[in-house]
Amino acid sequence: MRITDVVVTPIAFPDPPLLNSVGVHEPWVLRTVVEVRTDAGLTGLGETYGDIGHLNRVRAAAPALTGLDVHDLNGIRARVSTALGGQAGSDRHGLTGQLTVESTVDRVFSPFEVATWDIRGKALDRPVVDLLGGAVRDAVPYSAYLFYKWAGHPGAEPDEWGAALDADGVVAQARELTGRHGFRSIKLKGGVLPPDEEVAAIRALREAFPDHPLRLDPNAAWSPTTGLKVAHELDGVLEYLEDPSPEIEGMAEVAAGSPLPLATNMCTIAFEHLAPSVAAGAVQVVLSDHHYWGGLARSKELAAICRTFGVGLSMHSNSHLGISLAAMTHLAAATPNLDYACDTHYPWNSAWDVLTEPLSFVDGALPVPTGPGLGVELDRDKLAARAEDYRRCGIVQRDDTGYMRTIDPGYERRRPRW
Amino acid sequence: MRITDVVVTPIAFPDPPLLNSVGVHEPWVLRTVVEVRTDAGLTGLGETYGDIGHLNRVRAAAPALTGLDVHDLNGIRARVSTALGGQAGSDRHGLTGQLTVESTVDRVFSPFEVATWDIRGKALDRPVVDLLGGAVRDAVPYSAYLFYKWAGHPGAEPDEWGAALDADGVVAQARELTGRHGFRSIKLKGGVLPPDEEVAAIRALREAFPDHPLRLDPNAAWSPTTGLKVAHELDGVLEYLEDPSPEIEGMAEVAAGSPLPLATNMCTIAFEHLAPSVAAGAVQVVLSDHHYWGGLARSKELAAICRTFGVGLSMHSNSHLGISLAAMTHLAAATPNLDYACDTHYPWNSAWDVLTEPLSFVDGALPVPTGPGLGVELDRDKLAARAEDYRRCGIVQRDDTGYMRTIDPGYERRRPRW
Ligand SMILES: [Mg+2]
Ligand SMILES: [Mg+2]
Repeated sequence: MRITDVVVTPIAFPDPPLLNSVGVHEPWVLRTVVEVRTDAGLTGLGETYGDIGHLNRVRAAAPALTGLDVHDLNGIRARVSTALGGQAGSDRHGLTGQLTVESTVDRVFSPFEVATWDIRGKALDRPVVDLLGGAVRDAVPYSAYLFYKWAGHPGAEPDEWGAALDADGVVAQARELTGRHGFRSIKLKGGVLPPDEEVAAIRALREAFPDHPLRLDPNAAWSPTTGLKVAHELDGVLEYLEDPSPEIEGMAEVAAGSPLPLATNMCTIAFEHLAPSVAAGAVQVVLSDHHYWGGLARSKELAAICRTFGVGLSMHSNSHLGISLAAMTHLAAATPNLDYACDTHYPWNSAWDVLTEPLSFVDGALPVPTGPGLGVELDRDKLAARAEDYRRCGIVQRDDTGYMRTIDPGYERRRPRW
Repeated sequence: MRITDVVVTPIAFPDPPLLNSVGVHEPWVLRTVVEVRTDAGLTGLGETYGDIGHLNRVRAAAPALTGLDVHDLNGIRARVSTALGGQAGSDRHGLTGQLTVESTVDRVFSPFEVATWDIRGKALDRPVVDLLGGAVRDAVPYSAYLFYKWAGHPGAEPDEWGAALDADGVVAQARELTGRHGFRSIKLKGGVLPPDEEVAAIRALREAFPDHPLRLDPNAAWSPTTGLKVAHELDGVLEYLEDPSPEIEGMAEVAAGSPLPLATNMCTIAFEHLAPSVAAGAVQVVLSDHHYWGGLARSKELAAICRTFGVGLSMHSNSHLGISLAAMTHLAAATPNLDYACDTHYPWNSAWDVLTEPLSFVDGALPVPTGPGLGVELDRDKLAARAEDYRRCGIVQRDDTGYMRTIDPGYERRRPRW
């Protein structure tokens, strides 16, 4: 079963003005849909970032895969590596920063890798979870992902979600998200307001949702001193504190005195970060993400590393659609030690999905798709509409800080900010 | 594709009197052949240890697998774990010692896991290597595995190999093994003679084989002081020194001052040993072995851990037949960072293999079997003959020390000995 052709389609879809430590989400999210076609007539799907540097790397790698067998993950990754010729990328929106060559290869490899599992599942008439070692859970719990946000993008109508700029707004948003989807864990994206206000929002959530595990993620907006202070204030309230401070060194400094476990999707985001992170005791939970850990098989390797070194495992999300969510769900279902609820942005963007049927949470969990492969189907009309949105939206590179500056010219990116 | 039946067959086959740090190989090797049958009419093969404690655990687990899907590795391992009910085993021959519950589960799980890959490969008409991520090499290099040995078992005729009790004997054995099989790496099992004599044997090998990478494995027979002394004496001569001293602490002490990389299949033999081993810097090369690391998928996880933590990867062998060798070869071929020649005892025992066609080395490497699954076929007459040997041989538990004492009543097991 050999690859005959790979189609790479950049898409865009609307996004609310979600605030974070480096600015605010622009009105459009960029993603890329990958379709891998084979000589067996089967096509596999993958979804990845849409920023122009990454898109160009995906486009450069795609034709190099022709002729390879869909089982040959070693060969496909090697071809991707060769096609990139030692390029290292960055995430220009600044949430993680410069990448290494190896982790750039993993990011570009990922959507193709996911597509091969989709194809292999379809060929066997089995869901991907079966090929990843079998389901240890039939449904994967996700968390309600709360954001501070404006009522709408400046100059546009308010969106359906309304503003959330204080504890009351955050609690209202949590009620909305849990009400719609049944989520049983809650995460607040922080790093937006002064730490005291975010602590107050978490306390308000705890009062409103006494039994929901809670998380706070300021995206490294705090100095280690501030991080330690918040960790002590929220001891017994949070299940984990996510990326309070920058870099392995900063996280290790907080971890050394924190009564709470620390989680990360910022200081430990590639295989080469694991040894120094473990040696420093920097994090107690790694947020895995197949989009940057090199696909599903390598994410299972990450899970084995976490299991082996006594590090917890949860799952990170960037803005994404249903192909990604299906892949995340198959992976999580096959990973015994992924025992936290996973993060997902899907409720913010699912109305613009490119699947024939958007995916639905049941009691806060996504039932593992039972159809062959990823168990999802691309709607070509929707894909064409989102591709047209991409051409028209005028954005080729996520830039939360730049967008914020168009609204607040004095806004500065600072890390740590508090 | 569900498991309907598992057949467990203990077998025995002749072994020469190979010497090691705890005694001498008995006249019979014990192994167990596992056949996993499915409702699709396909059968998968696995091979494992034959010691009675382990055999009883394999027998206890086997019926628990009925009804499980062959893809469901998570489910199969969970059933094995439940069937064992928290038992921890040991390797009674004393080369590694007491096992933990988890590593006991991995040992019992392994032959079933290998059989599921064999079945899945047969169902897809593809070799197992394809399902493990694809071949990065078409043939897997193995090392010539030299042993000090007597001319024959006491009271029996000399065997075809002759004695090897000094440097000349070792070099002659190396010529025989490399001549027959073309091996391009050489390993000497040490821990038998005083270290100076083993150093002299290595020097003689270096003279006779100037371009072959050389290894010496005294199985922890040396104190750290002796280990360090030998490491310095053989600097620039060995590619690695295997298990000079006991335990992670002893290995770390040698490693701290050794100019040679240290390898192990004794102090780091289960996932729970990896964190302390890495933290102590105890070893630079782990000798993987799917028989105790829980099968092929978990051995790939071990490979990912070694890659991630900058630890080299080679492969260990106990006395085995061709089912094991085929599995070792598929695994090694699919593992990019397994870049040392693998160890194998196969040349010592291949005449008694239970395959229709024994496997053959070409220029010291085993071509990766290209047939479906493991690519090997069980010869039922040979299996029956080896099973009959098992019933007649009078041994149910490997005991190198006990056998040595029947010959040399004053023999004592000491670790370290020098
Ligand atoms: Mg985060
Ligand atoms: Mg050894």
